[in-house]
Amino acid sequence: MEKKVPYKIYLSENEIPTQWYNVRADMKNKPAPLINPGTHQPLTKEDLDPIFCSELNAQELDNETRFFDIPEEIQEFYKMYRPSPLVRAYFLEKALGTPAKIYYKFEGNNTSGSHKLNSAIAQAYYAKKQGLKGVTTETGAGQWGTALSMACSYFDLDLKVYMVKCSYEQKPFRREVMRTYGADVTPSPSNTTQVGRKILSEHPESTGSLGCAISEAVEAAVTNEGYRYVLGSVLNQVLLHQTIIGQEAQAALRKYDIKPDIIIGCAGGGSNLGGLATPFIGEMLRGEADYKIIAVEPASCPSFTRGKFAYDFADTGMICPLAKMYTLGSQFIPSANHAGGLRYHGMSPILSQLYADGLFEARSVEQTAVFDAAVQFARVEGILPAPESSHAIRAAIDEALKCKETGEEKTILFGLTGTGYFDLKAYEQYNNGTMDDIIPSDDLIASYLEKLPKVEE
Amino acid sequence: MEKKVPYKIYLSENEIPTQWYNVRADMKNKPAPLINPGTHQPLTKEDLDPIFCSELNAQELDNETRFFDIPEEIQEFYKMYRPSPLVRAYFLEKALGTPAKIYYKFEGNNTSGSHKLNSAIAQAYYAKKQGLKGVTTETGAGQWGTALSMACSYFDLDLKVYMVKCSYEQKPFRREVMRTYGADVTPSPSNTTQVGRKILSEHPESTGSLGCAISEAVEAAVTNEGYRYVLGSVLNQVLLHQTIIGQEAQAALRKYDIKPDIIIGCAGGGSNLGGLATPFIGEMLRGEADYKIIAVEPASCPSFTRGKFAYDFADTGMICPLAKMYTLGSQFIPSANHAGGLRYHGMSPILSQLYADGLFEARSVEQTAVFDAAVQFARVEGILPAPESSHAIRAAIDEALKCKETGEEKTILFGLTGTGYFDLKAYEQYNNGTMDDIIPSDDLIASYLEKLPKVEE
Repeated sequence: MEKKVPYKIYLSENEIPTQWYNVRADMKNKPAPLINPGTHQPLTKEDLDPIFCSELNAQELDNETRFFDIPEEIQEFYKMYRPSPLVRAYFLEKALGTPAKIYYKFEGNNTSGSHKLNSAIAQAYYAKKQGLKGVTTETGAGQWGTALSMACSYFDLDLKVYMVKCSYEQKPFRREVMRTYGADVTPSPSNTTQVGRKILSEHPESTGSLGCAISEAVEAAVTNEGYRYVLGSVLNQVLLHQTIIGQEAQAALRKYDIKPDIIIGCAGGGSNLGGLATPFIGEMLRGEADYKIIAVEPASCPSFTRGKFAYDFADTGMICPLAKMYTLGSQFIPSANHAGGLRYHGMSPILSQLYADGLFEARSVEQTAVFDAAVQFARVEGILPAPESSHAIRAAIDEALKCKETGEEKTILFGLTGTGYFDLKAYEQYNNGTMDDIIPSDDLIASYLEKLPKVEE
Repeated sequence: MEKKVPYKIYLSENEIPTQWYNVRADMKNKPAPLINPGTHQPLTKEDLDPIFCSELNAQELDNETRFFDIPEEIQEFYKMYRPSPLVRAYFLEKALGTPAKIYYKFEGNNTSGSHKLNSAIAQAYYAKKQGLKGVTTETGAGQWGTALSMACSYFDLDLKVYMVKCSYEQKPFRREVMRTYGADVTPSPSNTTQVGRKILSEHPESTGSLGCAISEAVEAAVTNEGYRYVLGSVLNQVLLHQTIIGQEAQAALRKYDIKPDIIIGCAGGGSNLGGLATPFIGEMLRGEADYKIIAVEPASCPSFTRGKFAYDFADTGMICPLAKMYTLGSQFIPSANHAGGLRYHGMSPILSQLYADGLFEARSVEQTAVFDAAVQFARVEGILPAPESSHAIRAAIDEALKCKETGEEKTILFGLTGTGYFDLKAYEQYNNGTMDDIIPSDDLIASYLEKLPKVEE
């Protein structure tokens, strides 16, 4: 007999996974390696060590080890805000009148407001273990910077955040959370780096870009003794750390003998989708189960659905290595009217390979429809979702409404990556009816894809 | 043998209390009744019914019923965000190096960001049950307005919020959360009421006050068919609903045979302190246990520690009934430099009577010391606390440091009422070193207390 599922399924602390799952070990077609943009040679650990933390590089390059033990210090930190609840969306089901059973894994109950903390604490730990003084990073809207500032504060590591200047000025709240956790937040472009000074001398009024902030953060890591650069998405190591999400979800589902039919995650750089979905994809790769997995991306930045699977620069600034991934071209930048996060031109190489191999499907959604779903969800489930997460909500509602039509009692699981408390400018646009949908033209996308670097494979 | 206490103690859903506890039933000295400011006669249900919801008035006036059943619809809503965790502050204990055991009941894991939702949903429920179209209220910083907008959205009730104009303009994020939940938010003073129009004609540039917003909200309730006025603190009914906090804490503590020595809550109008502490005070009143209970208030608005226990207007606008309470005088307004919430001139009549009867002690703390505690807490416990809650954190840390000196292993429980995501202007002041402490002079307080209404008891 089926057990009555509570509104929230919590694991006990000793049920939190103690290992991260590396889906690459189960992939027949491994993700393509990062390559040097000049020589096109695969990057080795020796190439990466001057820029990134050594043990993280080992994780980055390891396509074979299926499980990595989570160090005890990180396990202890996880207990500060984990296990995160797996919520049965009874209220939403009722509002939709659907026979579908909807679950969401909620990662927003921590001050960073998102799942980013799962990897931030791991990266800070390995930096500390290596004896570093500190780390550098860039942040746009500030979600990653906030998570990293919490993690660095915990391990007493110095943190230099280069925050895109217009965000620094327009999102003072995120900036203050970072400062409260002791981070040194610098508006980018700044006078603290060569690249920043160069940009400022040419464009004194520049309000910055993510590409410029990355360049400054990397320069600061390389030129300051005892610093390394860290990154919150796209990288293999980040997906590895984020599998705590999917593994916890699996453990919670097992408690009530629940098998999801459909698994949904929003996709920007891939840290959330990869974290939630790869433990399930691993079951598929090993032939143990089958799921319909859906990546949801914004119509204004449609890497999977309209991009090309090819080597491209990982960053707009074209200083980072080349990664083989679904990309819109490193110079593609979503419209300024795009409110919903997930603005990265590329995609995790792991997810890109899995998508190319047909392990999941992808769809794009327009932002007013995303905010329709966000508000519907907030009103019945009581959580004001982040715009990013709301892409997954949109698809979950759409799937549940299909079940309503067909009468099918499918079980839907989606990732609710975070809360929207720092995104209220976007909600204001929506509430005022001034939000619009932006879909890049075929010509625009083609113009960027033409300029992809030529790499022989 | 003592069971190992986890970082977070969660009750299961069927352990959420199904009754609210009314401490008045156990009080020998009942709280003094609200009285009519003109006649000085105690207000009857008939007096209250045109302004407030009928069943809430019954709760307000009931000094005898020990437990009120929580209606099933409210129990169901509680499952959206309750049970709230009782957290063992292992990280804080370690950072302080104290032998004390510190626990906090965390009420911030919901979109309203505070405990206010516990009473908002009850008040919305009774309004709906009465067949009302909607309710009106005022909000300053917006915590109560946010909670009520969530509650009204859930029961499909109309909500008119009068928001002090300067907050409406300076705190657009709270305003947008309310609008997202469908509330009609009007900056006060407004043209929608007589009292608002009068103020605007005399002072066109007025940025509003809480007194003015209350007057407008009450007028809107009385003059619009099918509306009543609701309030988020001070009232007996609010303390009643908030006892879900203290009762859940008791149930969680019982699971691990924990008996707190010290219980700490911040005190503004009393909704949080009353909710957390009165179930424990009930044990004291019934001679079943003894606790040291501490109310913590801001030095800039010290109702308990420097006010007078006397009848006074419940509102700055002097249109509400008189309540017997600890008060600084209804015209007392804390300095504009006061950042920490808890700015009400008076205090819950129930708590006032209990304090007069010696059931708990009170202390005041200065705001820079409060933010010192807030930041120390945020950095180790991972939750950015609301300024209000941080008053309790300050006292908890102080008590834990006393234990460090004496070597006593006391058990401390405090109420963490909410998160500070919408209070980052105050954190910015603190981070910039521009926050100062404001303590009203004896002469200033005396000048307000001289003007208290003369009431013969």
